[in-house]
Amino acid sequence: MLQAVLLDISGVLYEDDQPLPGAVQAVRLLQDKGCPLRLITNTSRQGRAAIHRKLTGMGFAVAPEQIFTAPQAVLRHVRAHGLRPYCLIHPGLEEEFADLLDLPGPNAVVLGDAEMRFDYAHLDRAFQLLIEGAPLISMGDNRYFRGQGALHLDAGPFMRALEYAAGTTALVLGKPSAAFFASALDDLGVRADATLMIGDDVIADVQGALSAGLKACLVRTGKYRDGDEAQAPAAWVAADLAHAVERYC
Amino acid sequence: MLQAVLLDISGVLYEDDQPLPGAVQAVRLLQDKGCPLRLITNTSRQGRAAIHRKLTGMGFAVAPEQIFTAPQAVLRHVRAHGLRPYCLIHPGLEEEFADLLDLPGPNAVVLGDAEMRFDYAHLDRAFQLLIEGAPLISMGDNRYFRGQGALHLDAGPFMRALEYAAGTTALVLGKPSAAFFASALDDLGVRADATLMIGDDVIADVQGALSAGLKACLVRTGKYRDGDEAQAPAAWVAADLAHAVERYC
Repeated sequence: MLQAVLLDISGVLYEDDQPLPGAVQAVRLLQDKGCPLRLITNTSRQGRAAIHRKLTGMGFAVAPEQIFTAPQAVLRHVRAHGLRPYCLIHPGLEEEFADLLDLPGPNAVVLGDAEMRFDYAHLDRAFQLLIEGAPLISMGDNRYFRGQGALHLDAGPFMRALEYAAGTTALVLGKPSAAFFASALDDLGVRADATLMIGDDVIADVQGALSAGLKACLVRTGKYRDGDEAQAPAAWVAADLAHAVERYC
Repeated sequence: MLQAVLLDISGVLYEDDQPLPGAVQAVRLLQDKGCPLRLITNTSRQGRAAIHRKLTGMGFAVAPEQIFTAPQAVLRHVRAHGLRPYCLIHPGLEEEFADLLDLPGPNAVVLGDAEMRFDYAHLDRAFQLLIEGAPLISMGDNRYFRGQGALHLDAGPFMRALEYAAGTTALVLGKPSAAFFASALDDLGVRADATLMIGDDVIADVQGALSAGLKACLVRTGKYRDGDEAQAPAAWVAADLAHAVERYC
């Protein structure tokens, strides 16, 4: 009865820049079956093109349009509502947001993991728009990520800072928000209850998908830790992507 | 029965860099009576010496030790607990914090309105200490302030960002926190119920003082707005500082 599949990327397709065993073949199997597919991620330090290059470089047979990122969801939202956003985003996203940069009279704030652009001047400018009523649209509410041997601030803390300062609530268009899953389903043109999400993050991928009405499968790779199943009893479980595809798709 | 008086500064002593009518005389009257006095403020972009220069320049007869700022409360706390803080503070506070800057092996994070130092690198460094268990000590949780014709981010949003990122709760040593009033009373050596707080901010000054067990008087100057009394029915009310001192001190 499954109409479509959503796959998380890091920890499901690859780990430490190496494809997980059977993952390349599992993706090819889904493609050969003609199963509508989206690879979804909250990453907002690089655009779809860069992610596509990385995945094809590892041997994954995917088209750029099959990659659906939080920045893509934000682009869809901004265009659907005709917004002129002030974009506090990473340089890696500028190509994707090229036609939205430096528009006059901004009436929304778009926030991604802007890294070094998170400074007082940029945040103060965003705050001034928000306090005048502009909506805040965020590519995620992730607290931190691991990189180069340490934990680092992600976009979420800066989103919280702006929410608190301006007394507003952000629209989060990244996992685990239901709005993000809805945007991905809309991009695919399929129903939630006929779509399976496969991921290694029991909160962002699995609880998020279940809350949005999808089916979900937790894989025991990537950031999976023993016992994570208990946090999502309604989810299916598989050893890895290859087993998940074999069993459920 | 009053043993001591706490005065807010901006909006109570002066407005737009001009002393309010009768304010200079009211302060002198309190001094002449020998009433133990502290001028208290959350300002963390300048040190006590700069505030003292500004007040004496306007004719207020106060000693530097009678000015008790949120940074002073933080200094008291840090010294009392023998902490080695990582100081994310404004350059204007460096003189006051000189003996605490760049200590090796920081085991706490001190946060003020650091303005341009609120950038990714500084915030990420603070986060890394917090996630390892260092306490977060903030000079206030103010959302924003008005300056140069616009609203600007204060320290509060950055405090919230770090709290969210590290899953911690800051100790706030600025109005309206009870810990700040307790620190000011400790500095004076007086009891809460024998101390009167006079301020123009019904939340930070008046509700804060009442919650900390002090008596409080709301003055109708500065940021006071019609009807503010309703938010603190237990407070006394006066037209301005001169009337408050005449009537209650």
